[in-house]
Amino acid sequence: MSLRRIKNYKKRADFVSKKTGVNLDQIKRAGELIEGEQVHCENLIGATLFPMGVAGPLKLEDLASKKVWKAYIPLATTEGALVASVNRGCRAVLKAGRVKVLVEKIGVTRAPVFKVKGLVQADKFRHYLEERFEHFKKITASTSSHLRLLRYDFSLHPPFCYVRFYFDPDQAMGMNMATIASQKIIEFIEKDSGVKCVSVSGNFCVDKKPSFLNFLYGRGFRVWAEAELSISICKEILKVRPEEIRKVWNAKNMAGSAFSGSLGFNAHFANIVAAFFAATGQDLAHTVEGSLGTTFAEVRGESLYFSISLPAVMVGVVGGGTKLKTKREAIEMTGAKTPEDLAKVLAGAVLSGELSLLASLVEGSLAKTHMKLGR
Amino acid sequence: MSLRRIKNYKKRADFVSKKTGVNLDQIKRAGELIEGEQVHCENLIGATLFPMGVAGPLKLEDLASKKVWKAYIPLATTEGALVASVNRGCRAVLKAGRVKVLVEKIGVTRAPVFKVKGLVQADKFRHYLEERFEHFKKITASTSSHLRLLRYDFSLHPPFCYVRFYFDPDQAMGMNMATIASQKIIEFIEKDSGVKCVSVSGNFCVDKKPSFLNFLYGRGFRVWAEAELSISICKEILKVRPEEIRKVWNAKNMAGSAFSGSLGFNAHFANIVAAFFAATGQDLAHTVEGSLGTTFAEVRGESLYFSISLPAVMVGVVGGGTKLKTKREAIEMTGAKTPEDLAKVLAGAVLSGELSLLASLVEGSLAKTHMKLGR
Amino acid sequence: MSLRRIKNYKKRADFVSKKTGVNLDQIKRAGELIEGEQVHCENLIGATLFPMGVAGPLKLEDLASKKVWKAYIPLATTEGALVASVNRGCRAVLKAGRVKVLVEKIGVTRAPVFKVKGLVQADKFRHYLEERFEHFKKITASTSSHLRLLRYDFSLHPPFCYVRFYFDPDQAMGMNMATIASQKIIEFIEKDSGVKCVSVSGNFCVDKKPSFLNFLYGRGFRVWAEAELSISICKEILKVRPEEIRKVWNAKNMAGSAFSGSLGFNAHFANIVAAFFAATGQDLAHTVEGSLGTTFAEVRGESLYFSISLPAVMVGVVGGGTKLKTKREAIEMTGAKTPEDLAKVLAGAVLSGELSLLASLVEGSLAKTHMKLGR
Amino acid sequence: MSLRRIKNYKKRADFVSKKTGVNLDQIKRAGELIEGEQVHCENLIGATLFPMGVAGPLKLEDLASKKVWKAYIPLATTEGALVASVNRGCRAVLKAGRVKVLVEKIGVTRAPVFKVKGLVQADKFRHYLEERFEHFKKITASTSSHLRLLRYDFSLHPPFCYVRFYFDPDQAMGMNMATIASQKIIEFIEKDSGVKCVSVSGNFCVDKKPSFLNFLYGRGFRVWAEAELSISICKEILKVRPEEIRKVWNAKNMAGSAFSGSLGFNAHFANIVAAFFAATGQDLAHTVEGSLGTTFAEVRGESLYFSISLPAVMVGVVGGGTKLKTKREAIEMTGAKTPEDLAKVLAGAVLSGELSLLASLVEGSLAKTHMKLGR
Repeated sequence: MSLRRIKNYKKRADFVSKKTGVNLDQIKRAGELIEGEQVHCENLIGATLFPMGVAGPLKLEDLASKKVWKAYIPLATTEGALVASVNRGCRAVLKAGRVKVLVEKIGVTRAPVFKVKGLVQADKFRHYLEERFEHFKKITASTSSHLRLLRYDFSLHPPFCYVRFYFDPDQAMGMNMATIASQKIIEFIEKDSGVKCVSVSGNFCVDKKPSFLNFLYGRGFRVWAEAELSISICKEILKVRPEEIRKVWNAKNMAGSAFSGSLGFNAHFANIVAAFFAATGQDLAHTVEGSLGTTFAEVRGESLYFSISLPAVMVGVVGGGTKLKTKREAIEMTGAKTPEDLAKVLAGAVLSGELSLLASLVEGSLAKTHMKLGR
Repeated sequence: MSLRRIKNYKKRADFVSKKTGVNLDQIKRAGELIEGEQVHCENLIGATLFPMGVAGPLKLEDLASKKVWKAYIPLATTEGALVASVNRGCRAVLKAGRVKVLVEKIGVTRAPVFKVKGLVQADKFRHYLEERFEHFKKITASTSSHLRLLRYDFSLHPPFCYVRFYFDPDQAMGMNMATIASQKIIEFIEKDSGVKCVSVSGNFCVDKKPSFLNFLYGRGFRVWAEAELSISICKEILKVRPEEIRKVWNAKNMAGSAFSGSLGFNAHFANIVAAFFAATGQDLAHTVEGSLGTTFAEVRGESLYFSISLPAVMVGVVGGGTKLKTKREAIEMTGAKTPEDLAKVLAGAVLSGELSLLASLVEGSLAKTHMKLGR
Repeated sequence: MSLRRIKNYKKRADFVSKKTGVNLDQIKRAGELIEGEQVHCENLIGATLFPMGVAGPLKLEDLASKKVWKAYIPLATTEGALVASVNRGCRAVLKAGRVKVLVEKIGVTRAPVFKVKGLVQADKFRHYLEERFEHFKKITASTSSHLRLLRYDFSLHPPFCYVRFYFDPDQAMGMNMATIASQKIIEFIEKDSGVKCVSVSGNFCVDKKPSFLNFLYGRGFRVWAEAELSISICKEILKVRPEEIRKVWNAKNMAGSAFSGSLGFNAHFANIVAAFFAATGQDLAHTVEGSLGTTFAEVRGESLYFSISLPAVMVGVVGGGTKLKTKREAIEMTGAKTPEDLAKVLAGAVLSGELSLLASLVEGSLAKTHMKLGR
Repeated sequence: MSLRRIKNYKKRADFVSKKTGVNLDQIKRAGELIEGEQVHCENLIGATLFPMGVAGPLKLEDLASKKVWKAYIPLATTEGALVASVNRGCRAVLKAGRVKVLVEKIGVTRAPVFKVKGLVQADKFRHYLEERFEHFKKITASTSSHLRLLRYDFSLHPPFCYVRFYFDPDQAMGMNMATIASQKIIEFIEKDSGVKCVSVSGNFCVDKKPSFLNFLYGRGFRVWAEAELSISICKEILKVRPEEIRKVWNAKNMAGSAFSGSLGFNAHFANIVAAFFAATGQDLAHTVEGSLGTTFAEVRGESLYFSISLPAVMVGVVGGGTKLKTKREAIEMTGAKTPEDLAKVLAGAVLSGELSLLASLVEGSLAKTHMKLGR
């Protein structure tokens, strides 16, 4: 009997218990808490738990809408010191005033790879795509009233043509919608042009792999955040002087990342992104591109100017994991009503967490904190 | 009143509810399930839930020990189709026989950055480190009976010296232990040599950022897995012919990754790594380096040869999230007693998931599956 | 007395001879051959010689203009086997018919970096640039009747704004013209907007450094070439079967490059680019981005399909080194009247050289050839 | 009649003239100057000329040997302003005293790719290589009394095994010697172990392609240089204040390179490397890895500390282009007797050229200089 055939999650867990001799009572018990919810997980045996902490609040100011709001930051993690660290950063940043945030909608991307005979056909195919673009938009709209095709990039390495479609998925993260629409567009293209598609994803999307393409072109949302902290706030809350933060930033985030061939010019974006995604029902694997990004530190007069950029934030407020009740509560806690807003909260959290860790590194307290909280 | 001052997680949740107007009952309720457990999360307000599915079993053969065992693969995810896909891969691979796995212990790394005056002092410092290495091992051992210093790399960009220490953390993932030991070594170095440390981490570790350093040198465990599938298994279970898998692999995993400036020459390692880490209590942010890796597909006679490499798997079976009961059950379900074994199970799961997705891409079923399971 | 003060190149050489005890007669003698020419080299002491060989001819077909012409390929090099190898490739390719080439004018790029106070000013600056773009075009035109501003990219990492201008420099390679125009635009921007420029080049150009930006976005010209060779041509001239070329390409150009963290998915583009640039008076340092690029090999029926892409070819037919008589003759020898044409000839040469080296690697003759020609 | 059949370079040039209608008199005339020399260039039609300038002197201090010498720097280029710029940097650096240099011999590398059946054979092969290493050293020594095998790296991506051999080629750059020795080792391995080699170069060398492997592991020589310049020297000769250099360095060399996905954290290493290689008979295509590298600028008190690192300098003083008389004179002019020394001179030149360009960017004089010298 195979796992798929068992229809009840507890019976499936029991089957695995029998096969492995391992008691799965806790997993089953946790499973009870999501019973009746819309769960996207096959071969279910129950659920697992992540402790959830909260950091904040932050006062965020969106530069486009001028909207200002206080956001609490939900973080699901099993790593000691993380929430405490982000929270300390938030306290410093809140005391300094508003975190300014700016967001740019890049769109969720999906890049089918087509195969042509050679350059002649590739050149024709390029023109074909231009001509048919409006029709591709219609096909997209026909797959979902919530999806719009924005534009595409074309990359030719004969005989392969990578066509990177950018979609606006409204309130969802939209990866699945983008795949479905791309598939429909492909079916049309294959019939209409005779050019064959090798794969609906040609790794030019780039989904869940670190890539310079996403780092440079962006994906989902590109979001920036900045704050300016007086020397007294730095000293009182972060226990450092602005110049010390700048020095660690320079040696570590810039030079260290450069010299190790890293894409990420930051200290630990991934910690905050992963914990925030786990809390708010995002796709955990999007931590990979979601944690790409850069930082900047500078002493201005006696103050510290600090900024961060996240080029590829894939988030949604409907669909996928956001349907789960614990995730929904976490999203609501942030005050975000849209994916854009969620990206802004994340940016504020990332900035706070980054500042706090850099400060810990200055004072040499990282090891001490881990001794206390991490073991 | 600040969040930190509240001592009870439910009261803290209520405080946030009051401030935000958001009901956090589900998070609190989930929190009850980890009450009494050793939780590493500050400012706790409860817990969040991840549905857990199971894939497998796989029959793994460790090439070093010749050990063979059947492993079930726990996957915690909110993304539809993932578990089903990995499971399909497992069925194909199991039918083909054993997944051969090979693992190399690289060690958990931590790389302080020191600042020297210039080349003269840098050159002396390099020799100093060589001379004192045995003493650093002793310092390491003094911080934990479970930690051994293995070796270090030295990278000079004057005036910065990055010293990448490699530790064997026994059964733990070991990042915190490595930080604590590094801090002790640094304190000794500063006093003994007069060279000052800028930061206990100089981003040459490289922790939780995508980097060519980890891709090339490895981190934690480097693990390989391979399988050979007959054409009949490919056709029956994966609905494709071996040559078709090879073609998608070539256009997508190799060419597409190359042409998009990606570090990951794979289709979706991150999906499996993130879900496996969430299930087994690993640090979610380690998905970043854990999902680096390469694949290879080749038609041999009528069969498909397929292999994967994961250069930077950071896992443990004690400490951190592995203490949580639901995580512990998941680890036990895999049959792994050691981090090495856990890395091997992950490798088998990654290979299976990769095969299955590539097959879906061949048949153009990805979109269809997402229509059915993903929404 | 300083070098700069000496007005005659032979006297300057004599001065150096006196200081170093080294006879510089050959350099002085070579210098006589460029006397009276327009030389762009300060502190002149004479000249140095590069042996020049010729490969070809190739029959090139430009897919846009349908123009077909036979091109001889001048190669200046001191490395044995290079010209012979390219020539062998040309023979194979010529026998197979035409090399199809396609070219895209990206434009010469220069990217000043501006510094703003923060996100508010950055956002305004972005809009300011859009509004003033037409004026920037006018400023550009005022600096040279041969230069047109095409477009720009904007990259924000607060407080830095990188503005990558794309220029069409007509018949020149145009780097200096682009710098001069950028400087004029900057002067206008600084006065008009109050935003200050940190540097006329912010390394976002990217000039003469390997970068994923150039690899993905292109620079100068992006050019593709392809050829299809029958099995009999492969066997007769290249001494290999198509499948063997494909295998070496796969293990070396694709997998080897991927696994070593390389930007160049090719065997030795740089050899041909450097020798061609040296022969035709291009800027030698542009070999860095000029040799970026990818290859593709596939067996079609019994034939070999082979293609190459060069994303960042910076070439000109007027200005700089192209004024020297030996360089001018070499340009004319190719039949190229424009930079586009020169890029196409280069692409054909690169394709030929690549094919020939891969063939040598198959037959294991590389070492033997170097034993004969290289020592 | 084919080009190869013609035995005399002037007749070959005449043949091309006839075919193309292009007069090649200047190329032929330049060819006369290398008549009788040992030329490594097939299908010779003559020679091409590069103007040669000189910069310097620099006072170099080698930190290992404590040797101090004055070096003149030969630069062959067709690009205006380059020699003048390097020379200005030299003047500033000379006035400041000594350029300290440190060199590490990495070795010339060649990395054959072998193909195994799978992990079992790969693991055996790894051990086999360890066991036979001493014999590989003997084989190496048998191919040349000037070549020593130092060590190797092993990289496994089943079924491919990349074996990166490091050789010490004595006074030569050694790429050809390394290839020949690798070929002999391969022949032995194939017979002795039964494992087949796919290609003597598997692009894991990495020869003449930009790669993070070379950037991190080094190739040929790794060399560092540093200088400290007082504020008065900066102001008098470079027309800038130390802090201004630091700011441009930060925005351009570090941030700009990081944000454009560049391997090279420098302003224009390639300019100096290419001109120096052209002057001294090095392989021009080695400019690609030779120009990889990083810079650092810092204000110390009132002075400017500046350093550079070049991780992959492939140079020799015998063999290849160094046999040509004009090249030989240029090498001698530097005072270098060994490849190490040549690498040190290059490092000093690169440091000087970098400083001077950064200063030009500060004062906004780059465009002006090009207006004067570049056109």
